[in-house]
Amino acid sequence: MARVLGIDIGGTKVALALGGEDGQVEARLRRPLEPSGDGARDLARIAADAAALVAKSGLAARDVAAVGVSAPGPLDTAAGVVLGPPNLPGWERVTVAESLEAALGWPVFVENDANAAALAEWRFGAGRGFADLVYLTMSTGVGGGIIAGGRLLRGRADGAGEVGHAPVAWPGEPCACGLRGCLEAYVGGAAWTRRLRREAPEDSRILFHAGGRDSVTPVHALAAAREGDAFACAELARFNEHLARGIVGLVFTLAPAAVILGTIAAAAGEALCLGPVRERVKARTWPRVSAELEIRPAALGAATAELAGICAGLEGLARRAR
Amino acid sequence: MARVLGIDIGGTKVALALGGEDGQVEARLRRPLEPSGDGARDLARIAADAAALVAKSGLAARDVAAVGVSAPGPLDTAAGVVLGPPNLPGWERVTVAESLEAALGWPVFVENDANAAALAEWRFGAGRGFADLVYLTMSTGVGGGIIAGGRLLRGRADGAGEVGHAPVAWPGEPCACGLRGCLEAYVGGAAWTRRLRREAPEDSRILFHAGGRDSVTPVHALAAAREGDAFACAELARFNEHLARGIVGLVFTLAPAAVILGTIAAAAGEALCLGPVRERVKARTWPRVSAELEIRPAALGAATAELAGICAGLEGLARRAR
Repeated sequence: MARVLGIDIGGTKVALALGGEDGQVEARLRRPLEPSGDGARDLARIAADAAALVAKSGLAARDVAAVGVSAPGPLDTAAGVVLGPPNLPGWERVTVAESLEAALGWPVFVENDANAAALAEWRFGAGRGFADLVYLTMSTGVGGGIIAGGRLLRGRADGAGEVGHAPVAWPGEPCACGLRGCLEAYVGGAAWTRRLRREAPEDSRILFHAGGRDSVTPVHALAAAREGDAFACAELARFNEHLARGIVGLVFTLAPAAVILGTIAAAAGEALCLGPVRERVKARTWPRVSAELEIRPAALGAATAELAGICAGLEGLARRAR
Repeated sequence: MARVLGIDIGGTKVALALGGEDGQVEARLRRPLEPSGDGARDLARIAADAAALVAKSGLAARDVAAVGVSAPGPLDTAAGVVLGPPNLPGWERVTVAESLEAALGWPVFVENDANAAALAEWRFGAGRGFADLVYLTMSTGVGGGIIAGGRLLRGRADGAGEVGHAPVAWPGEPCACGLRGCLEAYVGGAAWTRRLRREAPEDSRILFHAGGRDSVTPVHALAAAREGDAFACAELARFNEHLARGIVGLVFTLAPAAVILGTIAAAAGEALCLGPVRERVKARTWPRVSAELEIRPAALGAATAELAGICAGLEGLARRAR
């Protein structure tokens, strides 16, 4: 079985992993990424880590078929270029594929991080066995990856799946992207955190759990909601309402068999999020649609990054073979 | 070149056509369809028409590779069964594929009418050359067909593309489907006709063109708007606003290179609809998205039905070969 070296480049960490089509990770390396302001330099360090990981694994160069890179957008995936993501300062037009191919010698395939994570949940996680699914990252921002007819739906210039910016209110709240009413403006971790810090009443359990207004994150809203804190429960209802709106649009457009919800929704769980979201989606779709629709939490958790990188490589190999 | 016999079954008419992969129609037959209340009987008449059309064309049975049927949903496309569309009384569980195969002898492939029309615009109309596009029917109802990565996007049970029921307002106006806020409730011909008849002021040019409130259709609103009638212009603005909302959600989800707009939008044209919709979409997407997006009127017009049937057959043959 050919191995793939997966590299997941996040805003705060890098995850490298060696694995194959069975999803078994044979060697791994995680480290913080503190962007130096020079993307090419950061990338050279990642290349050195990658070479060291393969060397340590005992695999020969010929045992590795490809390198898969999962990176935040905007990207030129065809050319393998990172185009300057907001959370990677200094990564303006970094030629990831070209540089890593030169440094490592294997073919390099670059995939948008949400698409790579969707591939990982589809192959190895909560999406196994579904030919049609939507995965929502539900983290700091809201990214999406769509599997349609057993293939990643790419769209023009690999731009599909930006479902965090599909509108769920008009005119709606301002989004960090410059538009208004985006799903991400309601359920993205960064947007929700800002709102919670601004709006949480002094006597809210959210502030108690966070130990102070400036430390509040969605985790504290979940903890407070579990205790029945009124403000936190209202916030969850607002979160679920807008998430359901986004899902309804996706369901009518794509007819997925499953919608897989990532970080925050998975952390919130059945009672606070998944159950209420299912009810809201059911009320706004047709019975023949909702009866067959699975709304599930993502299953891979912390393993997502490693498997996303590997899946980016497997996908690249599969595309090349088509 | 193998020919396909296309059959488009609409609520008021049937269009049969013989043609091939080049989109040239060599023989055609159109007639009104007045549902008898017995779908199987209506279908037997269609089968007789189909046999007569092939006989008259001079083609031998072996020159015809398949029959393609474009029919309104809900459908079981895999089994080729029409499941009781609201506009085809008596067509409850009509086994179209099985019955036509028995009557005619060729393999029969059944496709949802919006998907079949999308295939036709993609192969032969305004969508030629685009690997990723969305087509909106914009007729009595609003159906959609999505081409993604050079293939029809089907979804679970061929249910994708129901974009007429993606929500564009919350809670929004009631839709004929039982939900609220659906795109179709704002820009579907039937919904808009009801609203125009109810709301048009006595002195509106709409009533003048229609010759009476009960005769008003969207055509009269377009004529009145072209003359600057204030109510008609406000109605067009409302139409364009909701259409743009629907398109924005599709654009972020699917990243199409083109959005192709059918009947009413095509009839309204540049000044009344396409131009204003482009402006609204541009204001609510990112520059890098809108700069590359084509929003175009459908090109096939009255030929859509014939080519939709033929495309349903060509698609069935292509799927079988994959």
